[in-house]
Amino acid sequence: MGPTRRRADHARQVADLLRRQIVHGHFPRGQLPLEAALAREFGASRNTVREALGLLREEGLVERCPGVGTTVAREKYPHGLHRLLGLAETLHEHGEVTNQVRTMTLMEPPRAVSHRLNLPAGEQVVYLERLRRLNGLPLSLDLTYLVRDVGEPLFDADLEHNDIFVLLESITGQPLGTADLTLEAVNADAHTAAVLDAPPGAALLMVERLTHLADSRPVDLEFIRFRGDRLTMRGHLNRAAGKE
Amino acid sequence: MGPTRRRADHARQVADLLRRQIVHGHFPRGQLPLEAALAREFGASRNTVREALGLLREEGLVERCPGVGTTVAREKYPHGLHRLLGLAETLHEHGEVTNQVRTMTLMEPPRAVSHRLNLPAGEQVVYLERLRRLNGLPLSLDLTYLVRDVGEPLFDADLEHNDIFVLLESITGQPLGTADLTLEAVNADAHTAAVLDAPPGAALLMVERLTHLADSRPVDLEFIRFRGDRLTMRGHLNRAAGKE
Repeated sequence: MGPTRRRADHARQVADLLRRQIVHGHFPRGQLPLEAALAREFGASRNTVREALGLLREEGLVERCPGVGTTVAREKYPHGLHRLLGLAETLHEHGEVTNQVRTMTLMEPPRAVSHRLNLPAGEQVVYLERLRRLNGLPLSLDLTYLVRDVGEPLFDADLEHNDIFVLLESITGQPLGTADLTLEAVNADAHTAAVLDAPPGAALLMVERLTHLADSRPVDLEFIRFRGDRLTMRGHLNRAAGKE
Repeated sequence: MGPTRRRADHARQVADLLRRQIVHGHFPRGQLPLEAALAREFGASRNTVREALGLLREEGLVERCPGVGTTVAREKYPHGLHRLLGLAETLHEHGEVTNQVRTMTLMEPPRAVSHRLNLPAGEQVVYLERLRRLNGLPLSLDLTYLVRDVGEPLFDADLEHNDIFVLLESITGQPLGTADLTLEAVNADAHTAAVLDAPPGAALLMVERLTHLADSRPVDLEFIRFRGDRLTMRGHLNRAAGKE
């Protein structure tokens, strides 16, 4: 294990602790301490600290300018994993969510969709594609399949300024129930990256979510790509089964 | 909106549905249908299907060989988000988890760690770094800080074949309680990519997790980088508050 390797390992360790502090708003006015102070704090060499800051810069989390030092480049927003919430609901403290509708259409879905939504083959669904922004900057690209009776009234709704969840509860007159979700990290393909205004290959947090009404009927199947540099998911888990 | 743009959007839509089917083991022996059949199934052109399969190949999910067609390249394993489980516990159906200990040492932690573990400044912790493999292939790189009384007995434990969680419960004589976690998608830096045997820039699912004993004392702070192409997280959410 040569010194270069050890430094890379140590830099990763320091970067992880700094990332946590940045994401939780630990640094007033987004200004990180000087390298020398960080080196003392983390019991690391200046070179290791510099490498750690380099890793965070690569992630788009900090900027480094001569004379200014290291500053937080971009706020990373927390999305709760402890309750089923729409984007505007969960981020209301952080700014305004707006939705650009890229496509909205009735379509005969592939079996993969009918099956998930518990629909007979051939029954049409509403397909909706939205680019979602927080304070004007792209945050996610959402592909949504809705069962027809629930989705069709959305053609007349203000989709630009409302979460689908809130609209669905108003349309159906009942609250949503539960959602099953799958989370993955994927690299953005060139076209998706362009849509999200991110570099090609950027890490995306990909969410597939099937949402049911309170009466347990599945009505809303979504494929959501969040920009990895703009969002974290937070939740908690219990060790004991059945305490979820 | 030109035809190229529309095809890219449609390809993404098809790719998402195929990804779901692949990840859930929908295709017997990992063999995908022929392009023509997929085109019919998804109501898409052959070119669109080819582009969708290209996206999944870029993600490392499928392989395409002339004469053989498209096959699933790599199983993607589900990690439950509904209960606090160690890796070997959650993946026991899928194969053997082995852990290579890269570093294990007593250290005086930075304040960022003491604070999270609720320790007085200067109190030492056990730092542990493990490369975790499933069936021999790298799955995650885990950086772990443990409070000293709980972590020190691990120097004599079989860390190669056991989850930390199981060992902690045996050492403390009490079950674990809850964990707070933060999930992010990040691009692998060059050194991390090399350790995980993944391409530089590969999307990683990054988990920061603080685990408490049943008596609510925080004992275990972890920073985990999962290879995005090998793992999904699955859980479910309730709309109603307090039903978590």
